[in-house]
Amino acid sequence: MAGGTRMTTVGFIGLGIMGGPMAANLLRAGFEVIGHDVVPAARERLAEQGGTVAAGVAQACADADVVITMLPNHPQVEAVALGEGGILDSAKPGVLYLDMSTIRPQTSRLIAQEAAHKDVRVLDAPVSGGERGAIDGVLSIMVGGTEEDFDAAASVFAPLGKTIVHVGPHGAGQTVKAANQLVVGGTYALVAEAIVLLESAGLDAGVGLDVLAGGLAGSRILELKRETMVARKFAPGFRIDLHHKDMGIVLDAAREAEVALPVGALVAQLISAARSQGYGQLDHSALLMVAENLSGKGD
Amino acid sequence: MAGGTRMTTVGFIGLGIMGGPMAANLLRAGFEVIGHDVVPAARERLAEQGGTVAAGVAQACADADVVITMLPNHPQVEAVALGEGGILDSAKPGVLYLDMSTIRPQTSRLIAQEAAHKDVRVLDAPVSGGERGAIDGVLSIMVGGTEEDFDAAASVFAPLGKTIVHVGPHGAGQTVKAANQLVVGGTYALVAEAIVLLESAGLDAGVGLDVLAGGLAGSRILELKRETMVARKFAPGFRIDLHHKDMGIVLDAAREAEVALPVGALVAQLISAARSQGYGQLDHSALLMVAENLSGKGD
Amino acid sequence: MAGGTRMTTVGFIGLGIMGGPMAANLLRAGFEVIGHDVVPAARERLAEQGGTVAAGVAQACADADVVITMLPNHPQVEAVALGEGGILDSAKPGVLYLDMSTIRPQTSRLIAQEAAHKDVRVLDAPVSGGERGAIDGVLSIMVGGTEEDFDAAASVFAPLGKTIVHVGPHGAGQTVKAANQLVVGGTYALVAEAIVLLESAGLDAGVGLDVLAGGLAGSRILELKRETMVARKFAPGFRIDLHHKDMGIVLDAAREAEVALPVGALVAQLISAARSQGYGQLDHSALLMVAENLSGKGD
Amino acid sequence: MAGGTRMTTVGFIGLGIMGGPMAANLLRAGFEVIGHDVVPAARERLAEQGGTVAAGVAQACADADVVITMLPNHPQVEAVALGEGGILDSAKPGVLYLDMSTIRPQTSRLIAQEAAHKDVRVLDAPVSGGERGAIDGVLSIMVGGTEEDFDAAASVFAPLGKTIVHVGPHGAGQTVKAANQLVVGGTYALVAEAIVLLESAGLDAGVGLDVLAGGLAGSRILELKRETMVARKFAPGFRIDLHHKDMGIVLDAAREAEVALPVGALVAQLISAARSQGYGQLDHSALLMVAENLSGKGD
Repeated sequence: MAGGTRMTTVGFIGLGIMGGPMAANLLRAGFEVIGHDVVPAARERLAEQGGTVAAGVAQACADADVVITMLPNHPQVEAVALGEGGILDSAKPGVLYLDMSTIRPQTSRLIAQEAAHKDVRVLDAPVSGGERGAIDGVLSIMVGGTEEDFDAAASVFAPLGKTIVHVGPHGAGQTVKAANQLVVGGTYALVAEAIVLLESAGLDAGVGLDVLAGGLAGSRILELKRETMVARKFAPGFRIDLHHKDMGIVLDAAREAEVALPVGALVAQLISAARSQGYGQLDHSALLMVAENLSGKGD
Repeated sequence: MAGGTRMTTVGFIGLGIMGGPMAANLLRAGFEVIGHDVVPAARERLAEQGGTVAAGVAQACADADVVITMLPNHPQVEAVALGEGGILDSAKPGVLYLDMSTIRPQTSRLIAQEAAHKDVRVLDAPVSGGERGAIDGVLSIMVGGTEEDFDAAASVFAPLGKTIVHVGPHGAGQTVKAANQLVVGGTYALVAEAIVLLESAGLDAGVGLDVLAGGLAGSRILELKRETMVARKFAPGFRIDLHHKDMGIVLDAAREAEVALPVGALVAQLISAARSQGYGQLDHSALLMVAENLSGKGD
Repeated sequence: MAGGTRMTTVGFIGLGIMGGPMAANLLRAGFEVIGHDVVPAARERLAEQGGTVAAGVAQACADADVVITMLPNHPQVEAVALGEGGILDSAKPGVLYLDMSTIRPQTSRLIAQEAAHKDVRVLDAPVSGGERGAIDGVLSIMVGGTEEDFDAAASVFAPLGKTIVHVGPHGAGQTVKAANQLVVGGTYALVAEAIVLLESAGLDAGVGLDVLAGGLAGSRILELKRETMVARKFAPGFRIDLHHKDMGIVLDAAREAEVALPVGALVAQLISAARSQGYGQLDHSALLMVAENLSGKGD
Repeated sequence: MAGGTRMTTVGFIGLGIMGGPMAANLLRAGFEVIGHDVVPAARERLAEQGGTVAAGVAQACADADVVITMLPNHPQVEAVALGEGGILDSAKPGVLYLDMSTIRPQTSRLIAQEAAHKDVRVLDAPVSGGERGAIDGVLSIMVGGTEEDFDAAASVFAPLGKTIVHVGPHGAGQTVKAANQLVVGGTYALVAEAIVLLESAGLDAGVGLDVLAGGLAGSRILELKRETMVARKFAPGFRIDLHHKDMGIVLDAAREAEVALPVGALVAQLISAARSQGYGQLDHSALLMVAENLSGKGD
C-alpha cells in the first residue's frame, strides 16, 4: 500500500453507525474510499461525502490497496471475507485487510489462516470509543497480527484512532477487546448494585458515588456515567443489544481458551435480562434498571 | 468539644495498624490523646508517641471531649460502645463519639439510638485508603450522622483525612463504605478474569491491560495494580481477610435494605475462596489466583 | 429423663406454627407439657390442648426433664438459652435440652459449650417437613450431639418425627439442615429456570417437566411441585421469608467452615430478590416469579 | 415407512458410543440397518452385528425409509443433513428423518424448514440415559415435530427407549433436553456444594446426604450418585466434556428465547472449570472436585 501516500485506495465494507464516520475520516485524510453496504442510505451517505459506491464486495475490493470491514458479527465477516466473491476471492495479491469488527478471536484466526493461502495480509483491529470516537477519529484500536503488517497499516489507522496498539498475533486484538467488554460490562453491573444499595438505604446515591469515584473504587465509568445513571438517563451511548453480543464473544473466547469466567458469565446474563426486559436499545448503563427491578425498586 | 481548640482531649480505643498511626497524627496536630488497646505493644507505641495510656475503655473516655473507636468489626464496637463500663457508660455528657471502624450500618444506627439516651453524639466515620493513608493522614472519611455533629468533628478529622464527606444520617457512612468495598472487590474480580482470559490466549496481559486502562474499562485499580497483578506480587496493601470481612458487611447491609446483589454475592464467595485457598494474608489483588486456579492455570 | 416414661415433663418454648402442633403431639403421646410463648394465642392453644402454660422461660424449665425450643432464629435461641433467667440458669441439673429451631451451627456449638458448665445436656435437632409434617408427627429430625444423649431423647423425638437421624456432634444437625436448605433452594431455582426456558420457547412446561421428572433430572420437588409451579399456585408450604433466613444460615455456616458456595450464594440472592419483589409470604416455589420477572416474562 | 414392518430400512449416521448400540437394538428388533460413521472401527462393529456398511451418507440414505443421525453437535448435523450429498440431497421423498443428536433447538428448526422443501419429514429426538440406556434400549426420548410424524416413528423408537414423549413442535425435543441438562448439571453443583459444606464441618457426608435424599432435597442424582461422589469415584457415566457441550446448548437456547438463566450460566462456568482443571473425561459428578478445589480442600 506504499506507505499511505495520498493515492492509497481503501475498500470499505460496512458503512453503518461506526463504519460511516470512519470512512468519512479516511476521505478527509486524503484516502480514496470505495465502499459497500447492504443499506442504501449508507451507500448514499458515502457518495455525499465524496466516496465511491461499489456494486458489491467484489467491486469494492478489486482495486483496493487496503480493505476494511466494519460489520455486526462473525457470520457477516465470514461471509464477506471467505464467501464466494468475497474479499479473499476478489482482492489483489498483497492487499492489507483490516477487520475492524468486534468478533470472536477464533474467527479472526481462521480468516488469517485462509488469507495466508491467498497472499492477503490480515489484521484484526476492533475498536472502542463508540460512535462519538468514530466521528472524532479518536477510537482505541486493538490490533492483532504481524508487526510488519501493523506498521504497514499505520497511516490508515491514524485518521481513525488516538490509541493504536499492537497487542499480539492474529486474534489478539479481538481477545483484548473481549477483555475490555468484560470489564466494562462488569463495572456497570457493580456500579448498578452500588446505586441500588445506596438508594435502598435512603441515601443520595450521587453523593455516595462521588466518594467512590475519588478512591480505589474510582473508574472511567464512575467518572463519565454516575450522574446520568443516578438521573436514569440512558440515551445511547453504546446499546445493551451490542454489549449483549459482545458478552457472547467474551464467553466464546473463554470457551476456546478453556477458562471459566464466573463473574463475566453472570454479568452476561444480567445484560441478557436487560434485553429481555426491553432495554436493548438503551445505553449499557441501563443495567441499573435490571438491578433495580430485581430488588423490586423499579417503577 | 469546643471547636477543636488545641486543648481537645481524644479518647482513642483501638490502636492497631490503622488506629496507631491515626492517633499519632492527632498527637502531631496538637490533640491530647488518651488511648487504649488490648495489645500491650500498641499501648507502648502510643506512649512513645507522646500519648497517654489508659487502663481501659472507661478511663480512656472519662475526660475525653471526643472518643474515637477503630476496631475490627461490630462485635468489638458493640462491646466497647454499649457494654458495661463502655463508652456510653463512661463518657461525659455531650461528648462526640466517632466510630471509624468499618462495621455494618445497622450496628451504627443501633449505637446512635442508644447514644441518644445518654447525651452522646455519634458519627459513623469509616475510612478508606489503608495503612498508607492512615500514616500519611490522607484517608477518605465517609461520615454518617447530623450535619451539626459533622461540623463539630471537622478539626478532629482534618489531620486524618484528605477527602472528608458527610454522606447522610447515622449509618450512611457505613453504607457508602460498603458500596465502596463492593465495587473495589468486584473490580479486582473482573480484572482477574480479564488477565486469565488474556494469558490463556497466549497474550501479554500487561500490554492488553494498558489498552483497557486507557479506555472505558479504566479504573484506579487498573492504574495502580495492573503491573503488580501481572507480576503476581501480592504484598499487602489491604488483606483478603479484611476484604472478606467487608463483603460480609456489604451483604448484611443488602439484607437489611432488602436488596439483592447477585454480582456482589458471587464476588464475596470468590474472596471467601481466596481465604480458603490460603491467600488471606495477601493483598486483595490476589483474587487473581482464585481465577487462575479455577481454570487450572495456577502453579 | 428416665427413658421416656409417661411421667416425663417437657418444657416447651416457642409454640408457633411448628412448635404448637409438636407440643400437641407430645401431649397426645402422654408427655406432660409446660409451655411458653410470647404470643398469647399460642399459649391459649396449648392450654386447650391440655398443656400447662408457664409464666415464662424459667417457669417452663423449672420442673422439666426435657426442654425443647422451637424459635425463629439464633438471637431468640441465644436469649432463651443463655440469657438471664434462661434455660441454663433455670433448668434442673441433668436436664436434656433439645433445640429444634433452625439456626446457625456455630450458635448450637456455643450453647453446647455453655451448657456443659451447667450440667445441661444439649442436642441440636432441627427439622424438615414443614407445618404439615409437624401436625402429622412425621418430621425429619437431624440431630447433633452425643450418641448417649441422642438415645436418651429417642422417646421424645418419636411422636414428632418419622426419620430421626444422629448425624454427628454438636452443631451437626444444623449443618445438615443447612445443606438441605441449600439443595432445596437451589433445586427450586433450577426448576424455575427450566420452566422459563420451556415456556419462552412456546412449549407446555408441564409436558416438559414430566419428562424431566422421570429421568436423571428427577427430584422430590419436581414430583411434588411441578404442577403447582406451572399453574402459578404458590400457597405456602414453606415461606420465602423463612427460606431467606435459612440461606443466611447456609452462608454463615459456609463462612465458619471457610468454604465458598458460589451457587448457593447466587440462589440466596434470588431468594432475597423474591422477598424484595413482595413474595415473602408465598411458598418458596415462588422463586419461579423471580426467574420470570428477570426475563421480562412476568405479568 | 409402513408402520414399522420387518422390512423397514434404517439409514443410520453416527455409530459411536450411543449410535452403535442403538443400531444394534434396531437390528435385533428386525430392522434392516445401513450405517455410516467416519471411524472405521464403528463401521466394522456394525458389520459384525449384521448391519450393512454404507460408503457414505448418500449411500446410507439412498434406500432408507427412515434416517437416523446420532452425531456430536450441530456442525456435524448441519453438514450431514444440509451439506452437499447430505440427507436432504440423497434421501427418498417421504422419508422420515430422526435426528437423535443433542444440538441447539434453532438448528433443529432450521433443518425442519429446509426438509419441508424436499418432502423429508423430520423429528428432533434427543435422548437421555447415557451409554447404559442405549445398550439396554431404555433411553428417554424427547421428540419435537408433528404428531403425525411422531406416530409414524413409534416402531423405530420402540426398541431404543422406554419413555418416549412427544413434547411439542420442531425443536421442542431439543429444548426439553436442554432444560434437562440444566437441571442435571445444576443439581450436581448443588450436591457438590452440600458435600463440601458437610465435610468442611467435619461431618460424614454420606450420613448427611442420606437424610437429604429422604426429604424435599431428594433427587435421582442423590439416589444414584451420592455414594460414588462421597467416595470420589467418578468413572463415567456421562462425561464432563459432553455436559460442557450441552450447557453451551442450554445457553444458546436461552439466548434465542431471550431469557436469562443466571444459575445455569454459573453452573456452566463451573463445568467449564472442571474441564480446565483436567476432569473432562470423568463423570459429570466430578463437579465435586471443582467445588472442593475452590475451597482449597482438594488434594
